[in-house]
This record gives sequence, structure tokens and C-alpha cells, in this order.
Amino acid sequence: MNFGVIGFGYWGPNIVRNLTSIEDSRVLAIAEISSGARKRAQKAYPAIPVIDDAGELIRRTDIDAIAVVSPVWTHYELAKAALLNGKHVFVEKPFTSTAEQGEELIELALKKNLRIMVDHTFLFTGAVKKIRQMVDEDALGKLYYYDSTRVNLGLFQHDVNVLWDLAPHDLSIMDYVIKASPEAVVATGQKHLNSHEDVAFMTLYFPENAIAHINVNWLSPVKVRTTLIGGEKRMLVWNDLEADEKLKVYDKGVQIDNNEGVYDLLVHYRSGDMWSPHLEQVEALRGELTYFVECIASGKDAFNDGCAGLRVVKMLEAASESMSKRGALVYL
Amino acid sequence: MNFGVIGFGYWGPNIVRNLTSIEDSRVLAIAEISSGARKRAQKAYPAIPVIDDAGELIRRTDIDAIAVVSPVWTHYELAKAALLNGKHVFVEKPFTSTAEQGEELIELALKKNLRIMVDHTFLFTGAVKKIRQMVDEDALGKLYYYDSTRVNLGLFQHDVNVLWDLAPHDLSIMDYVIKASPEAVVATGQKHLNSHEDVAFMTLYFPENAIAHINVNWLSPVKVRTTLIGGEKRMLVWNDLEADEKLKVYDKGVQIDNNEGVYDLLVHYRSGDMWSPHLEQVEALRGELTYFVECIASGKDAFNDGCAGLRVVKMLEAASESMSKRGALVYL
Amino acid sequence: MNFGVIGFGYWGPNIVRNLTSIEDSRVLAIAEISSGARKRAQKAYPAIPVIDDAGELIRRTDIDAIAVVSPVWTHYELAKAALLNGKHVFVEKPFTSTAEQGEELIELALKKNLRIMVDHTFLFTGAVKKIRQMVDEDALGKLYYYDSTRVNLGLFQHDVNVLWDLAPHDLSIMDYVIKASPEAVVATGQKHLNSHEDVAFMTLYFPENAIAHINVNWLSPVKVRTTLIGGEKRMLVWNDLEADEKLKVYDKGVQIDNNEGVYDLLVHYRSGDMWSPHLEQVEALRGELTYFVECIASGKDAFNDGCAGLRVVKMLEAASESMSKRGALVYL
Amino acid sequence: MNFGVIGFGYWGPNIVRNLTSIEDSRVLAIAEISSGARKRAQKAYPAIPVIDDAGELIRRTDIDAIAVVSPVWTHYELAKAALLNGKHVFVEKPFTSTAEQGEELIELALKKNLRIMVDHTFLFTGAVKKIRQMVDEDALGKLYYYDSTRVNLGLFQHDVNVLWDLAPHDLSIMDYVIKASPEAVVATGQKHLNSHEDVAFMTLYFPENAIAHINVNWLSPVKVRTTLIGGEKRMLVWNDLEADEKLKVYDKGVQIDNNEGVYDLLVHYRSGDMWSPHLEQVEALRGELTYFVECIASGKDAFNDGCAGLRVVKMLEAASESMSKRGALVYL
Repeated sequence: MNFGVIGFGYWGPNIVRNLTSIEDSRVLAIAEISSGARKRAQKAYPAIPVIDDAGELIRRTDIDAIAVVSPVWTHYELAKAALLNGKHVFVEKPFTSTAEQGEELIELALKKNLRIMVDHTFLFTGAVKKIRQMVDEDALGKLYYYDSTRVNLGLFQHDVNVLWDLAPHDLSIMDYVIKASPEAVVATGQKHLNSHEDVAFMTLYFPENAIAHINVNWLSPVKVRTTLIGGEKRMLVWNDLEADEKLKVYDKGVQIDNNEGVYDLLVHYRSGDMWSPHLEQVEALRGELTYFVECIASGKDAFNDGCAGLRVVKMLEAASESMSKRGALVYL
Repeated sequence: MNFGVIGFGYWGPNIVRNLTSIEDSRVLAIAEISSGARKRAQKAYPAIPVIDDAGELIRRTDIDAIAVVSPVWTHYELAKAALLNGKHVFVEKPFTSTAEQGEELIELALKKNLRIMVDHTFLFTGAVKKIRQMVDEDALGKLYYYDSTRVNLGLFQHDVNVLWDLAPHDLSIMDYVIKASPEAVVATGQKHLNSHEDVAFMTLYFPENAIAHINVNWLSPVKVRTTLIGGEKRMLVWNDLEADEKLKVYDKGVQIDNNEGVYDLLVHYRSGDMWSPHLEQVEALRGELTYFVECIASGKDAFNDGCAGLRVVKMLEAASESMSKRGALVYL
Repeated sequence: MNFGVIGFGYWGPNIVRNLTSIEDSRVLAIAEISSGARKRAQKAYPAIPVIDDAGELIRRTDIDAIAVVSPVWTHYELAKAALLNGKHVFVEKPFTSTAEQGEELIELALKKNLRIMVDHTFLFTGAVKKIRQMVDEDALGKLYYYDSTRVNLGLFQHDVNVLWDLAPHDLSIMDYVIKASPEAVVATGQKHLNSHEDVAFMTLYFPENAIAHINVNWLSPVKVRTTLIGGEKRMLVWNDLEADEKLKVYDKGVQIDNNEGVYDLLVHYRSGDMWSPHLEQVEALRGELTYFVECIASGKDAFNDGCAGLRVVKMLEAASESMSKRGALVYL
Repeated sequence: MNFGVIGFGYWGPNIVRNLTSIEDSRVLAIAEISSGARKRAQKAYPAIPVIDDAGELIRRTDIDAIAVVSPVWTHYELAKAALLNGKHVFVEKPFTSTAEQGEELIELALKKNLRIMVDHTFLFTGAVKKIRQMVDEDALGKLYYYDSTRVNLGLFQHDVNVLWDLAPHDLSIMDYVIKASPEAVVATGQKHLNSHEDVAFMTLYFPENAIAHINVNWLSPVKVRTTLIGGEKRMLVWNDLEADEKLKVYDKGVQIDNNEGVYDLLVHYRSGDMWSPHLEQVEALRGELTYFVECIASGKDAFNDGCAGLRVVKMLEAASESMSKRGALVYL
């Protein structure tokens, strides 16, 4: 499988490193607009041509698939051109700047029978795979809440606010492990330094009283990457900053005895063992790109395809609208 | 100073223990409605009469002040009766069930020249005192955000939701260390087990782009008590569960260079030393009750007086209204 | 069961509090040499006579058992007098200042059919009980090592070095969970501030290549209470400072394939799940004293009897001898 | 500066990566005995010849310096050959298998005016630099103790025990930050799986009552990298596994008032702020190799020269002797 990679900034080098080391893939060319980044790419990969014109790369007939690793506002144009030129596309998260753009790309890929994969890397980590497996086995029981905190100092981006920068991680994981669609969103946030929100909070209402909450912040003195998931049977904490024991599953919960009347209401707390499963130790991005190569070969859509990317973009659009109206409920 | 204490449930024993050990105060009687709790009180304090009728205690002429340590919905009636009988009152948080009740009590105390203190115990901890001192010295600079997480498994209360149970701590601390009043509130949450929300999130908008956020949860498998405060000059993390080093102050921040146009915008991150100040090691409640005795003696109002309690109740009322409307903005 | 308690310093109040709250025991008198401590005792327990003469208390005929909670160098004289007066004795750790004294007390108790219990409180914690249970079930496999660190700032004692102050905890736990006797001891340490070692390290050789190590320090800026136990099948970490999850059991280990010759030696590491068992939440001292009352009633010796106390004293004596000879091997 | 690198196993790739990226150095050839490692080297560095014969590399006249990154037992032969061929040498830790070998190499380098650097990488980390700076500024005061724990699961080495594998790190750091030489060593340890000790403890006696202790273990279920240093003025904890705040300096200590007689002895504990200095964020190995290139260019010996390496080897030899005699004191 021959790849062209567009963008060699922060994340692009990881894409190229993995695509060159995976058995069934090669990188035929890299396109990058910044001359500094082009120099770094050329030094690291002397055997790969590094050009500035993405269009030239997209038009090469020996390339099967394009990885779009450039800023969000360029995704739609580049992915569209790639699809029109018969290339499969791997697009950085978030998929597109608007839901409309995402829908158009999905339709185009369908028409041309091409694959789209959106880079929701976290879905390929040992932790998220294990959580999904637990949900599949109904180990947690009916979901009560999903609560994620993703804060640190920087990076500020020029083109998007902190929700569009950090929340796609949480929304794509939530979308993967909760087998239901959120019905409505409430978001709040604040701008302090420039024209984009740097602190934001998002609540998502799900059917059957499930609720999700996401806290993202570019101005935190400490880095936090913690997700709590509470279910009827079990609860878990995923702390992605732990070297070992990232995932802790608690045999804890609440049982309620509904006797006659509110004064007879009895809440029992169940406090049992904690269990930290050994997690698969693989580089998530390598697993994801290997899967993309397989999807192209087999002609099957990935679970993190354009539709998955679109669902996240729709939630981001709704959250932005809610945040601009200071917490107004926006239905999805 | 002679005290009567109403309520010997979860918190009452701490009030009695401190009031009996402080030099200038004595407990003349305890009133408690539950016979089991009365037995416990009598065993622990054989020398103090323990009765079931709070009214009897309130009418005793040798008692100067009443501590109301009973459920929220009883605060107003008991405190009002105490004030009408010429007693000073120490009331458990939250002050009252409604802002209207709080206003009436404040007016009554003013008319009768009596003191009201609301039990915002955290304001008397070494950590909160140090944060307040830093704010007073402008060590943090202009405030960007205040973000608190207070989650654990239980306790469920019959009479209030998780916001009214846990958020008064955060709201009273926020009210004490942020020298500005919130303008509006957005709250979201969900009920899972009975008729009260057990998971809730609250955003408060302050003037000049400051924002506060509070995350409270009765269904978390782990206990978290963490507050982040971000300012222009410094940022801090207060983790109340740390045995030592509860407070960490970071010489970290962001500076922005506003050159011409948004594309020249340069954000610099400043990453410096961390400093964990040695905190005063005193029992907060002892300090608070000693201060109450002083306030009564001197005839001066406490900083955690009825007005402080009322400000918190107003925020809780607004938050409840917002939560019932799924995140609608409610002005204060 | 009627108790007399000698000593109301640091630990004595906990003994009295528990003995007065346990169903089948009462405290008839407290003896304490310091007038300040006597005042504190009298204020806390107005109904119990507090005297200065321990001898008077020992001679009272209505007292069944004496708790000796005074400095180490007084244990032998007080316990001996108590036994001679027909009282059962509960003695603070370490049991005695010399092995000879311990042996004499054991013999005396045997002759008079009285019970001795040495206060090895940690054996009654949920963590140590669980470790012992795991050893009983052979969950760890053949023992490789036991390694404990117990360091903090202070307390300096006038009469003993840091080994005699802190190591009895570790030695009594080790003695309880390792079902073998150490063969020899090596100890090193150093004095910095006065005539007693304030930093010390102890190695104990056990049969079949098992080894134990204890690190005690009065001069550490941070408090550490961590024990690692490595076995052939499983390994565990006990961190007593954790509020929850004090005990973590690792399904980790090493397997060795002995093919022909050293160059074919293959070491496999096994890395599996971690499991943190829910521990019993009881006050250890209450459990221990309840057990003492039962032992007296039933006439059976406790597992933490004088013999257990003597084993610890013998290890301390050997360690002191080794330390004074700068690490010389001392056989037990 | 033209380098030849011998060994491309676990650590060699880091040496090559840094030597190829540093401005003033180039790698002309890599020698590696394993064909699998040669393949990995060739794939990663297509432009550098990878050979199996180290001798050939050593004899190349265009090479200025040799990096010896092979097992300990090969260091002496390879370094000697390199020096005899007029090359500077960078040798992996520990320097040599015996002190005698080290002395011979140092003499040879002196005779030929060549530089030896021993790879004590930790001396180039931000944490160790900061500790050394604090010692230089007498911020800690008179040293009381140095206590290091370095434990994890694996790696087992065929040729050396856990002391020779892990303790060189601690010994080289201790040698660098304590400005005194140890006088004698006591070491204990145990073998469980093969013919080398996998658990070991080492005490070093320094002049003026300073003491050092090192705990190394290949059989620990958890990774620990913690060093405590106690001084008269301040104490510090260095936890190398912390992402941030690796170093914490405590304004804590002990003061002793020597009034008349031991009973008047008063020990005061001083408990003040904690301070975590911001540490330089550089790759230590890159700094070390840059410094080596500078030392060669300037003709000056490094502080981590052969003599520094020899001091560590002498301590290891003494410790091995002590351990084989079960803790016998061995003078240095």
C-alpha cells in the first residue's frame, strides 16, 4: 500500500514513522508547507521525496492512500481532492470543520468505493480496548455516567478552541464505549487570552438517564487525563498518565431497596475488591494504521470511519453553539 | 458561653466535642430526635442532659447560643425559634432551604442584635486560609478560573440532591477566595437511583471572564477533593486528600504578545518552580467555634455570617433551577 | 474483665479508649507518673481514678489484668510485679529490654497460669490479616524476599535507638507472615544527633535463600510505610499510607528455563493483572484487645503472646550487636 | 569528531542516535556481534557501515574515538585496544570488571594523552545537576544520610549480579554529590534463580557519621527510583519516576539543644515549606556526549573520567566481597 502524507508538523512524524515500519505500507512522498518542517522531514527520511505542493502528491497515480495530517480547516479540501483522485484517506481528528463537509466526504467516498478513516488513535490503546470489552461483556451494567478530565498547560491553537482541540479524544472514546447516542448537549466555557475558549465544560444527555461530562482546559498547571465511568454493576477509573495500572475496575456500587415510602428508602453501598487488568502494550497508532491498511485491502469500512468522525463533529458543532449561548440546550 | 446543641447525628458529635473542650464555652444540653443517637450522646457525655425536645432546649434561659446541626429542612424553624428566644445561632451548611428563609433570619438577627454563623468549616482550614492570603497579596494575579471536583461513593440524603449536599463546601470557599460575585449559573445533572440528582456539574460566570466550575458526584468509585485555580501570575492545585503538601503553587503561566493581527499572536508558556507552603495544623472546626465565641463576646459579625450563608443558598437555588431546565442560564 | 492501665502518654489513651468501649472489659484505674498526663487522663475519664503509684494499682485485688503502656525499660519490672500479683499482662512493644527478661516473664506466667500479650497491633490490621491468609493459602509461593521501609521525621526517644523503636513493627509482622525463623542478622546504622542510632538497616537471612530487609529512619523528610514481598508465584506491595488500596497483589513473576549450560539460561518475566483486595475496616487495637479478653476468658495463649514478643526481642538484640560491630553477622 | 560504536544492543542505539544528531560528531561505523542487532542497526542507519569485527573498527585510522557499549567483561579488552590504537574511549558503566583493569586503562590513557569517559548518564540529568548545585551552595548542610532504592522486575544479566547492574547508577551519583570518600562497605544479598544475586543491600560508611544505603532488586513487582538525602539544614527526595516535580526539597530538620545531662536533651523538629525546583529538560545522554566531544577537543579530563569510573568499580568490588562474606565490613 503506497501512502502520501500531507503535513509533517507535530503529529505527522509519528504517522510517517509507523507507515514506514509497517510491513505492508510505504510512504512515497511527504507534502509540507513549512520549509523548516520540510528540512526536518528530509533529514529524518533521506529516501522519501519531500515537497511543498500537496496537490502534486494527491495527483500521483502510484499513491493508493493519503494521510491528511494538516490543520482542521484544510481537512475538507484536501480529503475531497484525494477522494476525487481515487485515493483512500486517513484524516486527522477532528474529521472536518463542519458536519456538512463531513457528510459530503462520506457520500463521495461511498460513490467512489473508497475508505475514510478518522484518526481516533485512543480507540486503539490497550485501555480503551479493555473498557470496550468490558462493556461488550456487560461487566459494568447499566451506565450511569461518563466523566472525563483532560487538562494541561497549552497548546494554544490559532484556528480552534479548546473543545475542538481536546474534546474529540473524549467524544470519540465515549462514542465507542457507550452504545447509545447523546440526545442533547450543554457547554460552557471562557476565553482569557485570545478569541478562542481555553477552558470549557460539556455535558451530554443520553437516553435512560445516562450522562457524560467533559472538562477540557489549556490553562491548567498540572496535566490530568482521567476518566470515571460509573455503572450499575461496577465502576472504573482510567488514568492515562499512570505508567502501569492505567485502568482500575472497582467492584463498588449502590443498591437501592424500594420499600414503602421515601422514609423507608434504603441505599446500600457495595465496597469490594479493585482489579487492574494487564493491558496490551502496543503503540496505538501502529495498530490503527495496520488496521487501515487491512480495511483498504479488504474493502471494509473501519469502525472509526467517516461516519464515526462525523458523529464527533456534530457533537462539537452542537457544543460550540451551546457555549456561545452560555449553556443553552442544543439537541443533536 | 453556654451552648445548646440540636442534632447528634453525623456532624453533631464533632460540634459537642469542640464546644466542651474550648476554654470559654460549655454545652448545657443536647436535643436529638432519634433515641439511638440520644443513647450515644448520653454515653459519651454522661454529665450533659440529652433530651428529645429541641423546643425545651431553645427556651432555656441559661443558654446563650444554639448550634443547629439537624437536617437542612429544619434549619429555618429552629434558627428562627432560637433567635426569637434571644439566642445566637450556629447553623449547619447549607444555611436554609430557600433564600427567602435566609433573608428572614438575617433580618431577625439584626433586629435582635444576635449573631448568626453558618458552618462553612473549610474556611478555617490551613489550605483555604493560605489561598485567601495569596489572593489578598495578589500572588495569583487576575483570576482565570476556579475548578473543583468533589466526588465519592455516598452519602445519599433523603432531603436534598448532590448539589445541596456537596457544593456548599465549594461555593463557600469560592465565595471567600474570589473577591467578586458570580453573575449567572448553568447547571446540569442526572438522577439514577431516586428522586434526587446524584451527579451534577455547575458553571458560574463571573465578571471579567473569570469562570468557576464544580463537579459533584455521589456515585464515584474513588474519592476526589481537588481544586485548580488558574491566575494570570500563578496557578495552584489544592488536593485535600494529601496528608502533607495539600497545596501546590505553580510559577507557571501564559503570556501573550499581541503583535499585529491574529497570525502574529505569540503565546509563551512560563514553566517555573513549584512551591508547597507549610500549612497551619489545626482542627478547622475548633478554630471556627472559637471564632464564634469571640464574635458573640465582641458583638461583631463573622465573615461567615448569615449573609455569607445566604449567598451560597442563592447560588444553590439558581443552580437547581438551571439543572431542572437542563442547563438554562439563570442570573443571580 | 477489670483492667488497670499503667501509662497515659502517647499510646495509653488509645488503650483506655478501647478498653472502656469493649463490651466485656472495664478500666478500674490508671497509673501515670507525669502530673500533666494525669490531668489529661482525669479530664477525659472523670469516672476513673488516676493515681501516680503503679504499685498500688498492681496490688488491687479487683483488677484482673494490667496493661503496661510505659517506656521499654520499665516493662520487665512492672510486668513481673503484675504476674506475681496474679494479673494477666498486656505489654507494649517491644516486650522487654533483653531476651533474658522476656524469658523470665514467660516462665513466670506459665507457672502462675496467666496470659501475656505483647502489643503487636499491626497483626490485627486488615492488611496483615490478608497477607497472612494469602501465605496460608500459598498464594505467593516460595518466599524470595521481604523488604520493608518505615521512615519519617521523629520521634526521638531517650531510651532506645531507631531499631528498637520502629523495627518491632516489621519484625513482628515478618515473624507472623513468614513461617520460618531467621538464622542470622546483619545490621548497620548511624548516630547523628545523640547517643542512639537514628538511621538503621537490617538484613535477616532465612532458610532456603529467603531474605528480609528493614529500613528504619527518624530523619526522613517524608513518611514512608511500604513493604514489598516477593514470592515465586506472586508479589505484593503493602503501602500502609494509602487510604484505600493499601494492598496490591501482582500476578507477576519470573520463570527460569534451565536448559543445558549457562548460555541457554532463559528467564521469562510474567506480567499479569494486579488485584487490590477489599480489606476489613476495623480498628486494629480494638480487635487485639477484644482477643486478649477472649484469651484470658478461655485460658488460651494468644499468637502474639510472650513467646512472639521474645522472638522479636532476640532479633533486636542480635541486630544491635551486629550494628555495634558495623555489620558483623550475628546468628540467632 | 569521528566515532566508532561497539555494541548495538539495549543502550547502543541511544548512543548512535545522539552521536549522529550532535553537531560536531559523526558515527563512521558500528560493530556488533549479533546478526539480529546488526540488521536493526543497518535498517535504522542505512548510511553507516555495520560490521561484526570490533577489531577492524578499532584499527580504522579515520576514527577519533570509540564508544564501548558491550557487556562489562569486554570493556577492558576493547578499551585497551582502542587506547593502544590512539582512540579516545567512552565506556559503558560499570567501567571495568576489576579495579586492576581500570587502573591499567587510566595509566595507558595518561601515557597516550587520551580521554576516557565512563557513561555515568545520570550525572547529566537536571535532577542530579540541581542536587550537586545545592550541595555546592551548602543548601543541605552537613550530610546525615543518602538512601537510594532502585528496584523493578528484571533485567537479569548473565554476567553480573544486581549490584554490578544497578548500583553503579547510585554509586556514581553518590560519588558526585557527596564530597567525601566512603571508608568501608557492608553488603548483603541473596540469589534465587541462578548463580547471581538478584536482591542486594549495601551500606557505605563515610567520615563524620555520614552513611549511605543502596537497595537494588530485580524481583520487585513495582518500579521504584527514589533517593532520600538528609542534611542538617534541609532534606530532599528525588523520585525519578515522577513526570514533573522529580525533586522535592524540604525545609525540614532536627535541632538539638544540649542542656545539662541527657534528660534535658531537647529535640526540636522544624517543619517548613517544600520546594520543587524547575529542572532543565534535556536528554542527559546528549549532554554527556556533547561534553565528551568538548573534552576531547580541549584535551581536558571529564569529571566522569576513568578515575570516577574506577572509584565506582572499587566500591562494587568491596561490596561483592562483603556480600560473599554475608555482611563483613570491607575497607576501601
